Amino acid sequence: MKFEHSDKVNDLRKRVSAFMDEYIYPNEATLYEQCDQGERWKVLPLLEDIKAKAKSADLWNLFLPESEHGAGLTNTEYAPLCEIMGRSRWAPEAFNCSAPDTGNMEVLARYGTAEQKQEWLEPLLAGEIRSAFAMTEPAVASSDATNIECRIEADGDDYVINGTKWWTSGIGDPRCKILITMGKTDPSAHKYQQQSMVLVARDTPGVTVKRMLTVFGADDAPHGHGEVEFKDVRVPRSNILLGEGRGFEIAQGRLGPGRIHHCMRAIGVAERALEDMCRRALQRTAFGRRLADMGVTKHHIALSRMEIDQARLLTLRAAYMMDTVGNKAARSEIAQIKVAVPNMAGRVVDRAIQVHGAAGVSGDFGLAAAYAGLRTLRIADGPDEVHTDQIGRLELKKYL
Amino acid sequence: MKFEHSDKVNDLRKRVSAFMDEYIYPNEATLYEQCDQGERWKVLPLLEDIKAKAKSADLWNLFLPESEHGAGLTNTEYAPLCEIMGRSRWAPEAFNCSAPDTGNMEVLARYGTAEQKQEWLEPLLAGEIRSAFAMTEPAVASSDATNIECRIEADGDDYVINGTKWWTSGIGDPRCKILITMGKTDPSAHKYQQQSMVLVARDTPGVTVKRMLTVFGADDAPHGHGEVEFKDVRVPRSNILLGEGRGFEIAQGRLGPGRIHHCMRAIGVAERALEDMCRRALQRTAFGRRLADMGVTKHHIALSRMEIDQARLLTLRAAYMMDTVGNKAARSEIAQIKVAVPNMAGRVVDRAIQVHGAAGVSGDFGLAAAYAGLRTLRIADGPDEVHTDQIGRLELKKYL
Amino acid sequence: MKFEHSDKVNDLRKRVSAFMDEYIYPNEATLYEQCDQGERWKVLPLLEDIKAKAKSADLWNLFLPESEHGAGLTNTEYAPLCEIMGRSRWAPEAFNCSAPDTGNMEVLARYGTAEQKQEWLEPLLAGEIRSAFAMTEPAVASSDATNIECRIEADGDDYVINGTKWWTSGIGDPRCKILITMGKTDPSAHKYQQQSMVLVARDTPGVTVKRMLTVFGADDAPHGHGEVEFKDVRVPRSNILLGEGRGFEIAQGRLGPGRIHHCMRAIGVAERALEDMCRRALQRTAFGRRLADMGVTKHHIALSRMEIDQARLLTLRAAYMMDTVGNKAARSEIAQIKVAVPNMAGRVVDRAIQVHGAAGVSGDFGLAAAYAGLRTLRIADGPDEVHTDQIGRLELKKYL
Amino acid sequence: MKFEHSDKVNDLRKRVSAFMDEYIYPNEATLYEQCDQGERWKVLPLLEDIKAKAKSADLWNLFLPESEHGAGLTNTEYAPLCEIMGRSRWAPEAFNCSAPDTGNMEVLARYGTAEQKQEWLEPLLAGEIRSAFAMTEPAVASSDATNIECRIEADGDDYVINGTKWWTSGIGDPRCKILITMGKTDPSAHKYQQQSMVLVARDTPGVTVKRMLTVFGADDAPHGHGEVEFKDVRVPRSNILLGEGRGFEIAQGRLGPGRIHHCMRAIGVAERALEDMCRRALQRTAFGRRLADMGVTKHHIALSRMEIDQARLLTLRAAYMMDTVGNKAARSEIAQIKVAVPNMAGRVVDRAIQVHGAAGVSGDFGLAAAYAGLRTLRIADGPDEVHTDQIGRLELKKYL
Repeated sequence: MKFEHSDKVNDLRKRVSAFMDEYIYPNEATLYEQCDQGERWKVLPLLEDIKAKAKSADLWNLFLPESEHGAGLTNTEYAPLCEIMGRSRWAPEAFNCSAPDTGNMEVLARYGTAEQKQEWLEPLLAGEIRSAFAMTEPAVASSDATNIECRIEADGDDYVINGTKWWTSGIGDPRCKILITMGKTDPSAHKYQQQSMVLVARDTPGVTVKRMLTVFGADDAPHGHGEVEFKDVRVPRSNILLGEGRGFEIAQGRLGPGRIHHCMRAIGVAERALEDMCRRALQRTAFGRRLADMGVTKHHIALSRMEIDQARLLTLRAAYMMDTVGNKAARSEIAQIKVAVPNMAGRVVDRAIQVHGAAGVSGDFGLAAAYAGLRTLRIADGPDEVHTDQIGRLELKKYL
Repeated sequence: MKFEHSDKVNDLRKRVSAFMDEYIYPNEATLYEQCDQGERWKVLPLLEDIKAKAKSADLWNLFLPESEHGAGLTNTEYAPLCEIMGRSRWAPEAFNCSAPDTGNMEVLARYGTAEQKQEWLEPLLAGEIRSAFAMTEPAVASSDATNIECRIEADGDDYVINGTKWWTSGIGDPRCKILITMGKTDPSAHKYQQQSMVLVARDTPGVTVKRMLTVFGADDAPHGHGEVEFKDVRVPRSNILLGEGRGFEIAQGRLGPGRIHHCMRAIGVAERALEDMCRRALQRTAFGRRLADMGVTKHHIALSRMEIDQARLLTLRAAYMMDTVGNKAARSEIAQIKVAVPNMAGRVVDRAIQVHGAAGVSGDFGLAAAYAGLRTLRIADGPDEVHTDQIGRLELKKYL
Repeated sequence: MKFEHSDKVNDLRKRVSAFMDEYIYPNEATLYEQCDQGERWKVLPLLEDIKAKAKSADLWNLFLPESEHGAGLTNTEYAPLCEIMGRSRWAPEAFNCSAPDTGNMEVLARYGTAEQKQEWLEPLLAGEIRSAFAMTEPAVASSDATNIECRIEADGDDYVINGTKWWTSGIGDPRCKILITMGKTDPSAHKYQQQSMVLVARDTPGVTVKRMLTVFGADDAPHGHGEVEFKDVRVPRSNILLGEGRGFEIAQGRLGPGRIHHCMRAIGVAERALEDMCRRALQRTAFGRRLADMGVTKHHIALSRMEIDQARLLTLRAAYMMDTVGNKAARSEIAQIKVAVPNMAGRVVDRAIQVHGAAGVSGDFGLAAAYAGLRTLRIADGPDEVHTDQIGRLELKKYL
Repeated sequence: MKFEHSDKVNDLRKRVSAFMDEYIYPNEATLYEQCDQGERWKVLPLLEDIKAKAKSADLWNLFLPESEHGAGLTNTEYAPLCEIMGRSRWAPEAFNCSAPDTGNMEVLARYGTAEQKQEWLEPLLAGEIRSAFAMTEPAVASSDATNIECRIEADGDDYVINGTKWWTSGIGDPRCKILITMGKTDPSAHKYQQQSMVLVARDTPGVTVKRMLTVFGADDAPHGHGEVEFKDVRVPRSNILLGEGRGFEIAQGRLGPGRIHHCMRAIGVAERALEDMCRRALQRTAFGRRLADMGVTKHHIALSRMEIDQARLLTLRAAYMMDTVGNKAARSEIAQIKVAVPNMAGRVVDRAIQVHGAAGVSGDFGLAAAYAGLRTLRIADGPDEVHTDQIGRLELKKYL
């Protein structure tokens, strides 16, 4: 047991933090302003500048493990960096480490052909284009992937795709050029071999964004989440990933690291909320005392401290197990963080809101937006209930 | 003990429900649409039509107790009607029973001079104008009214008002013509006699809406919440309510019924969310079973049922005590519902969101917006912590 | 809606409270002492004296509704008296209102033949004998009554009973003369018509108490809970209650009022714990302040106040519905209190323990024993999970 | 970061587990039986046999770090062994690793003189005698050590001790020969320099055990918790530990490792309860399904899994920090586990009780006793509230 990061990781943490201090935090207000003015779906010039700086600082694509492309960090090594990035909504993209691109790049790096890599992975790694992931459907409970209705039918040298997806994240970005789309190639196959994933260029005829969705009222511009219609969308057969019937397998492989990333970012959000909560409690006075001097405030701060630390350790442990015994052996551990972390972070942010009073629910502190994002994580990639059920079953299996 | 409404109340419940069925629910989609298109701060024509219908159905101003103006209902009688109205965001205004107008009308009815009533109460009762309540300030913890910094200084025949308020609800409505504003007339007086309330016509020079605020990203158009600057705002001395130094007293009187209203509406929101949750659980299927057949879903439904019913009884009890022993003797009971109900309703809506999956956080079901509103109630009129502290002290006092 | 007791009930409340003040509270220490010295399973002389006083004060058998025997109180009328009795472990028996006798007397009054009533109901009503109820079995999940394995086989003019029961409450009392025993007369019948109830005199050959059980280490002397073996126990056929195959029906009828009683007593326990908590918090000082002045203490007191009041209202509502629409129509309401009240009371007592420090877990304050009793209520008559499942199903049914 | 134990630790874990399998688990029933028969305060012959075996297996005094006496394990190395021992009530003593002896041995090893060590530490290390720790007092809130009223007054070559202590654990054991007693030598000194600790031989005149206390009804024989009166108890001045006025300092030093031990044992209790819960859920059937197949059961199992794992990591982290940066720098981390772990373990055991039904509250499964012990840990060494307050203050201090 060792509860310290390696020197290599501590050095990277210092560099990422220093970058945040120099380029991210001081620019947050301006980035929100650029985002909120005029057209919603656009490129933010300031963020592009910062990306260039991150690239030249060699803090770029840190997420990609076991690959010639990334920084060669293990999940355990990348996790604490990901937490730091999670502290600001703008940071992950600045380091080219934002969802859904990270997951998509991983899929391409791991399962893509040389041609697919050249066409899509290279520009994604360069931060020149962006991507989307189209899996969830409005008509069915999509946590059960066997419910998926989108069809991918072979027709000559092509696949023809028909279906409606929603919560296709990143589709609002004008640089979004490619969608990884999940659908059924063979509804009569074994239930986990019906699904396939295909690459669909954003400008393929028949791909229509019907509307952009909101999350607790926010549209999450400039990337957003779209409802996307696929109507007789025709792509060459070479666009399939890994092969027909292997969509479920790819989805599984994609999930592990993605969960580490989501969770560590959520921990970053919680950590910053706790910091905000402490600062606010030290500033505000009511009934003759600082909020910080009231027992209930200290109680809430203490609970937050204990919960964050436990959740972080759980996540690092999951990352460590992914690195050492692999996703499959670690599937209970990965499911655990998927449930534990967003719930924890939601509670911490909720307490921070309460200490901020009306300011907490406003747009001035980012806490309400953070809450909305964290609340969504309890549903994204399957609701809590699916994962607790799995954790329960895995636990019971030990005694069968 | 009698756990049944009187025939009179049951008849009114039937009529209000029938009105909801006929005019509110079927028009909700259109009302949201009218609201979301074009200018944010406007009058919705369809809502005006419905208001006319409510007026002619004699379902108008039901909230005003002990008054020549209203329907003469007690708090206990009005409460269950208020719950029904709370089921739709659009309903309270349709019946001229929406905050902050209700509280403002009550203040005017109870403390206003004949002139003040004629000028402002009459058109408010008629639904011709709307009003705002300016109390909370951005710079201080406003749950402690002694913190208030806004100044109301006598100057000849006028008062001159200087200060900044925020969360001035209703200010976005173009029909908003009057603000009840709280400030200090004498900062050197006893701490509960420093405050006064004055009537400030919306178009008085020096009254500037600096910006409209958001609640979890939503602007709550077309009424909204504004940050309002008062700069050398001059109003005649006759605009004072009740007299100098009596602002705190008015605020206290205003709060009791307001809390019943807020809580009963919140219960209406929770009840509708539970209904949505059940319907959705019966429709959706995952892993071969309806969500309704899963144990965790039923558990969440059962918890919601128990919590709603308990909170409703607590609120009706508080209303009953206000009617029979008065606000002061019932102050623990009123504080209790202020804490218990929004927390309960927030939990119920949160569970409903979870059953809806991604649809729950979207704008399609109103659940995320409902959550945001309920979350705000845990802060409005003082955060939970202020009220639990008071309840605790009142309980301890029994043993001193 | 009326949140006040009738004059009749208030008068009874006063009389029961006065009796508690005069005879119960001042004698609690002596009663515990008499209980703890020497033989565990015995009659406490002081309690017998108090019973005589309750009888002559006409505060006797208040529980029996709709009967020539009791005080003729409705459930709604009896409930608040039951709460007062619940404040002391010794009080229910003093008023001849303690479980399982109350339930057994009700069964006899409602379903017994004239002979059965004369032999068993009369002496029970007089407080001369006591009784036990034998339903739960160690070998199966008894919350599902269809699991029951005890056999009641007709053999000539007799029934022959074979089986093992546990948690047969009251069996330790030397005055226990009769057991109402549930078993299967016809395992091949419809699953709710297999069970029957028979009266078994305590001294029938073959009835053996194998051991007395403990609840969180306590034996609950002098009444206790026993593991009882029935080995070829032979009773006359006339001992059957209501008829063969009607055991399930009787069990259902027995449960409703029993749940009101258990819940109201639990509310009495919680109310007294809150009182203890307040008094202790006002007495003890740590780090220079009374515990009562600490924010977290007040927070816990406030939560307790809110939860007790809500749970009491829920229980009174259930009682009212039983009186007005009957057990069957009120089955969700009855299930709700079965879950909500013991959980609530357990939380309140737990908080009171915490304020008492080490004294709270000791035997000096009765809080630990109260906790143990309340914890058991979450399992007795079926665990929470069975009831929440039922509440959930009843709620969903509204939308089918 | 490394989430694996060293080979050395894994080897020891295997040996301790094997010893548990061979000597502890199969003897538990007999040990309980020996304990429950006849005299409460006695030596259990079977446990003495097992101790001899542990000693010859070199699994003895594993707890003592940085000492010539123990196994030389760090806190991080000992912690996982302590968890395994915690799985059985009888195991810690079998390995000579049970409280309060461990803490007392540590105090003697660290602060004792050569003479004190020879007289008391040697036989304690050999498991020949046992000891008690007398700090808590019935009359004051002892979580605030400055409240302590026991007096230790110098008189010639002696100290004279007067006071009443309770929760003096271990005093029931006939082999208990020595008490470490805390009292005030100088009530006029600085508030943290008033206290001293002295060694008091059990048979010193004036030391009287007034009564043995119960914890949720259990007397925890054969060691127990006593109320001990010190009346003019005279001990030589050489019995002082470290020097006058240094009692607070010793108490602080004693607490750190003690908290790791208590927490790791509690985790062992929770882990075993989860195992019991799974096994029971797989065995029992209700309403046609195994409990294990019900969603709510799996949900509770999953929550327990997540909570145990988080709490264990938190505790190991605290142990690691104690080893690397010391108790003082790790005081928030140590306070965190003091709060987080007993609460967590209590919840897990509570869920296990619920799955066991009535068996869960009985004496048959040890769950109720486990709950009582864990509940007590939320108070021992200061109630949760004291520690959360400290954690809150330490967190806030970062921003001052």
